Amino acid sequence: MAGSVFGVLVRLTTFGESHGKAVGGILEGIPAGFSINVEEIQKDLDRRRPGQSAIVTQRKESDRVQLLSGIFDGKTLGTPIGFLVENEDQKSKDYDEMQHAFRPSHADFTYQQKYGIRDYRGGGRSSARETVSRVVAGSIARQILETKGIRIDAFVDQVGSLKWEGEWTTELKTISESNSVRVPSEELASQMETLIREVRKEGDTIGGAVRCAISGVPAGLGEPVFDKLHAELGKAMLSINAVKGFEIGSGFDAISMRGSEHNDLFTPDGKTKTNYSGGIQGGISNGMPIDFRVAFKPVATLIQEQETINESFEPVSLKAKGRHDPCVVPRAVPIVEAMAALVILDYYLIQNAYQQ
Amino acid sequence: MAGSVFGVLVRLTTFGESHGKAVGGILEGIPAGFSINVEEIQKDLDRRRPGQSAIVTQRKESDRVQLLSGIFDGKTLGTPIGFLVENEDQKSKDYDEMQHAFRPSHADFTYQQKYGIRDYRGGGRSSARETVSRVVAGSIARQILETKGIRIDAFVDQVGSLKWEGEWTTELKTISESNSVRVPSEELASQMETLIREVRKEGDTIGGAVRCAISGVPAGLGEPVFDKLHAELGKAMLSINAVKGFEIGSGFDAISMRGSEHNDLFTPDGKTKTNYSGGIQGGISNGMPIDFRVAFKPVATLIQEQETINESFEPVSLKAKGRHDPCVVPRAVPIVEAMAALVILDYYLIQNAYQQ
Amino acid sequence: MAGSVFGVLVRLTTFGESHGKAVGGILEGIPAGFSINVEEIQKDLDRRRPGQSAIVTQRKESDRVQLLSGIFDGKTLGTPIGFLVENEDQKSKDYDEMQHAFRPSHADFTYQQKYGIRDYRGGGRSSARETVSRVVAGSIARQILETKGIRIDAFVDQVGSLKWEGEWTTELKTISESNSVRVPSEELASQMETLIREVRKEGDTIGGAVRCAISGVPAGLGEPVFDKLHAELGKAMLSINAVKGFEIGSGFDAISMRGSEHNDLFTPDGKTKTNYSGGIQGGISNGMPIDFRVAFKPVATLIQEQETINESFEPVSLKAKGRHDPCVVPRAVPIVEAMAALVILDYYLIQNAYQQ
Amino acid sequence: MAGSVFGVLVRLTTFGESHGKAVGGILEGIPAGFSINVEEIQKDLDRRRPGQSAIVTQRKESDRVQLLSGIFDGKTLGTPIGFLVENEDQKSKDYDEMQHAFRPSHADFTYQQKYGIRDYRGGGRSSARETVSRVVAGSIARQILETKGIRIDAFVDQVGSLKWEGEWTTELKTISESNSVRVPSEELASQMETLIREVRKEGDTIGGAVRCAISGVPAGLGEPVFDKLHAELGKAMLSINAVKGFEIGSGFDAISMRGSEHNDLFTPDGKTKTNYSGGIQGGISNGMPIDFRVAFKPVATLIQEQETINESFEPVSLKAKGRHDPCVVPRAVPIVEAMAALVILDYYLIQNAYQQ
Repeated sequence: MAGSVFGVLVRLTTFGESHGKAVGGILEGIPAGFSINVEEIQKDLDRRRPGQSAIVTQRKESDRVQLLSGIFDGKTLGTPIGFLVENEDQKSKDYDEMQHAFRPSHADFTYQQKYGIRDYRGGGRSSARETVSRVVAGSIARQILETKGIRIDAFVDQVGSLKWEGEWTTELKTISESNSVRVPSEELASQMETLIREVRKEGDTIGGAVRCAISGVPAGLGEPVFDKLHAELGKAMLSINAVKGFEIGSGFDAISMRGSEHNDLFTPDGKTKTNYSGGIQGGISNGMPIDFRVAFKPVATLIQEQETINESFEPVSLKAKGRHDPCVVPRAVPIVEAMAALVILDYYLIQNAYQQ
Repeated sequence: MAGSVFGVLVRLTTFGESHGKAVGGILEGIPAGFSINVEEIQKDLDRRRPGQSAIVTQRKESDRVQLLSGIFDGKTLGTPIGFLVENEDQKSKDYDEMQHAFRPSHADFTYQQKYGIRDYRGGGRSSARETVSRVVAGSIARQILETKGIRIDAFVDQVGSLKWEGEWTTELKTISESNSVRVPSEELASQMETLIREVRKEGDTIGGAVRCAISGVPAGLGEPVFDKLHAELGKAMLSINAVKGFEIGSGFDAISMRGSEHNDLFTPDGKTKTNYSGGIQGGISNGMPIDFRVAFKPVATLIQEQETINESFEPVSLKAKGRHDPCVVPRAVPIVEAMAALVILDYYLIQNAYQQ
Repeated sequence: MAGSVFGVLVRLTTFGESHGKAVGGILEGIPAGFSINVEEIQKDLDRRRPGQSAIVTQRKESDRVQLLSGIFDGKTLGTPIGFLVENEDQKSKDYDEMQHAFRPSHADFTYQQKYGIRDYRGGGRSSARETVSRVVAGSIARQILETKGIRIDAFVDQVGSLKWEGEWTTELKTISESNSVRVPSEELASQMETLIREVRKEGDTIGGAVRCAISGVPAGLGEPVFDKLHAELGKAMLSINAVKGFEIGSGFDAISMRGSEHNDLFTPDGKTKTNYSGGIQGGISNGMPIDFRVAFKPVATLIQEQETINESFEPVSLKAKGRHDPCVVPRAVPIVEAMAALVILDYYLIQNAYQQ
Repeated sequence: MAGSVFGVLVRLTTFGESHGKAVGGILEGIPAGFSINVEEIQKDLDRRRPGQSAIVTQRKESDRVQLLSGIFDGKTLGTPIGFLVENEDQKSKDYDEMQHAFRPSHADFTYQQKYGIRDYRGGGRSSARETVSRVVAGSIARQILETKGIRIDAFVDQVGSLKWEGEWTTELKTISESNSVRVPSEELASQMETLIREVRKEGDTIGGAVRCAISGVPAGLGEPVFDKLHAELGKAMLSINAVKGFEIGSGFDAISMRGSEHNDLFTPDGKTKTNYSGGIQGGISNGMPIDFRVAFKPVATLIQEQETINESFEPVSLKAKGRHDPCVVPRAVPIVEAMAALVILDYYLIQNAYQQ
């Protein structure tokens, strides 16, 4: 186990360093006979792509996915779907200084400690470029889920201390996907964009949060006691680069709540009046929308001078070159959706195994 | 997969309903030749035990662990350690009303939807009694880790809006373990205890948080890209009953921070000045203390009347009998430690597999 | 991973040393709502039990199974089924000599090399007593399979060079289960019994083979390319104590056959005229009876003097005491059936996951 | 789980249909810092390649491997190694007739039954072309094992009823690799080649066997009770196309042996006088050479008329076109070695995890 396989029945295995030949993966366990729309995958990749707007990194990757197997005459065969995306715009020279110095709060140091060797160019395997494979796989999983009436919507709900406080409805997706921040409010979008531009001007970065709503999930998904649905969703989200926290439903707010206030009372249709549970009770979906939130730290790579050490543990000063994101959350939205899709489809199939 | 196996090389499988004959488990992957102190296991069980203080449930289980295999002449054989704890003080009659009515925000409803059948007595498999097995296994794992100089300390840092804001040092464990709340401040302990008593008097419950500090972990543990160390810790914690959130290091505070403030600058000994990373960078331990926090919701079972529905989806009113915790966090402390120990030992061994 | 977990959706974890307190296991992934007949489990245990006839070991274990969880009002809950069987008739003194000497061709030596420690009493974890847990779990799995019309029949088809050459039909089970050898011919049974008695008189042991026929399996089970149905069956069988070989359908005879002779021609009902494939083509069941054969070596523990070495690698002479089987195959029959049932149910559920 | 992931710490995931764009895989868990010789991989691929001699299929694939990640400056990074081999010489037209008719004893029928759809061209996923990925991965694993002094040698020991009866020594590899059959006897090679040519002339095929010897394996590898070393080797071999049987050491011959004859007596160096155990006792390597044998059936695709059925279960007659192997064993030798290498490296690392 080196940690590049995810899932039980729906399993994604990925490979690829940032500045190697390609990133890609193998997605297995996708049911047979489904039509896959490659343009939809490409659309999700474009939502993740560098250079898509003024507030993200200007690295220029066209990120065209190549599907190598598992699909025949436009339909899934039930066999593994191999795919890859070539790495194109590699300015490896930008990373020469990082060959010997460790960027603070980056994985440079820990990869060196763990493996005794690392591909320092662009962060190598630790680069968020790895998430290209997640988006491809998640997009395929999502297309299957849509045929079951399951819909996954992620959006940015916070950048720095600017926080969106509304109530999510799927109609808001039109707004969140029409601004470069991916927040469901045009006004906030403009404020957040201004903030991100300011931060970037200073060579600095800033944190943010992505919220995700999943509707149409039937009651019954999740495998207690260890593989509870929100535990697996949590692991999936925490495995995304730069994530520092995960909460479901009421999340950290639950700490200061009373049971009498927090309990979601049932209505006679089997739904609940409130949804502090976030759609999951006892680790099993209850039929209400699944609702979770993911905290992203500010990007570690700064375009400003920082004190650090080199491989001999000597103090050195480092100022990154290269093209980096001042704030990851706009590009993280399709990644969150992708990981959610993989988890939900996997547990959907597992639950289906037990239906007569 | 029905979700009752946890881990890769160190694997815990558990069984048991709250009011069945016993709860127990099988722990495999524990290295051979280590002395196991059964009294230490019992001590951890006692920290989780109902009835241990005035502010927890008064259910009376002696919770004596029986080790059935894997240990010979006091030493681990390297073979699976089978164990069980009998269920004793079962007042199943207290649950008669729950046979047909679903407790709001409990797993009653979702178990029924998922399996079409449930053991309604005491919550059955969804009861936190299941965590007895986690504590036994985690206690064994911890004894191995201690021989490697790794120490795990969890404690309560919030009940309702009462929050401890100090800086953790291992010396504080003496304080946190000497009060019934398990908070590292005697003053706060007394305030929190008062709050919990008030809440209980109202037949209500309240949320809380547990923080966990792990010291002595060498750099290099964690298996990116999916099995990052904090992702696995997150899953482990989110799988504990009543948990709604997990954060590592800066956690949700990172959202509003700048990179220049959040980055942990290296010092020439390979340590960092700050620890916003929480001891993990890029999913791999960096040698600093691992530091995470877990949010627990208020217990769902209330000793007050609540509106709900029965199995025919008809509205009914329900007031729980039985002996329930007004706040779970004091008893959750050894459970958090146990799950942390299982994860850390597992990844310690995986990393060791690659050492020459 | 220490190798005591088996399966994907239907997962068996086992524990137990031969002379420890108990052997047992946890079986998870059994669908909810099925009635389990405990007497059927006991009947299978009795078929595996020592002392059941004159030609097996005379160790006297009553081997009563205790079910500890997962069943409520006689029905499966969908939660893990914990179970144990106590060890009773332990004459550990018989093993005093083996404390320091390694029995040739037994696991004494390899356990010592692997773990640096071993429970020498009765072989500890390496004892075939471990298979008690397999029989309990397999018997439960089989009861589920029977509701799907799937039937599993194993029987002895060879002891030494005495080989049964008939064509199996399920009617023959009455014969195979009515003689102490479990061979589907009364005449052969008597010859084999005579042979086994002779061998035992000499303090010697002899090998044998078990064949297994599974009918009613629908086409479609098996997960290529690695988890082919016969590959998983093969692993399951090779994991049983004393097994040296596995073959499916034509097996080793296929080596000297021509394709024109070996190919199973289809008939218009989708069946095949011959069944050299043994019910599996390309790793997937084809709807024909599954038919495989398992080779068992002669038991290693002899009641006669043997040259060997002790833990200091010094030559010593060893003559086993204790009560041992002169030939394992009669008792192996229910073990083969049990492992087959676990594999078939697991892959049945996996395939079911993908049905719309 | 759709069966395309193999291994625990060393994990191979594969993809690819015979006539799709490419076949390939991702190999993870390879230790960091090792030099990988790409020419060695290519050499193993060439040993598996169609068209390499007069007695194998004349399909012309150059089978050049492209390594896409996980290697930097010629050394392993410890990250997943992604690789692919393009499909070139696809005469899909040769398979037009198989679009609707099922080849007897091939996977055509079972894939259609399982998935409801299949890529009929060249057998799609069920084609032995899939084993290209196994050879690439196994070759890498083998290069690591060689640095530990572990050597894996497979060779043909039977074609039809022509059987090699000698005693294997590594010196014989020069002979077995210098003839087109890969048998360690020039005389037998010539007889077998004549036989295979005759069989092909008749449009027929013939079975064979591959034996594998592994030397230098330390005592201690294997994870009882389910993941015994020979059980995992057995699964690995049985997962190879056309395999019908697996035996370790004495194998099926053990059935007719006495314990007094079969037991491997220890010598004072901890070795054994005989090796009927095949290097594994109780599922754990004992330090003697591992020795197993694999039975391959005759290839199902015949260049002669056969009765069969089509997708509507109507009788049709089918005569394959295309270029097929008359006997698979010569090309199976590197595949057997590859799968053996993956298993041994995996269990080597698992055992290493537990060393202090």
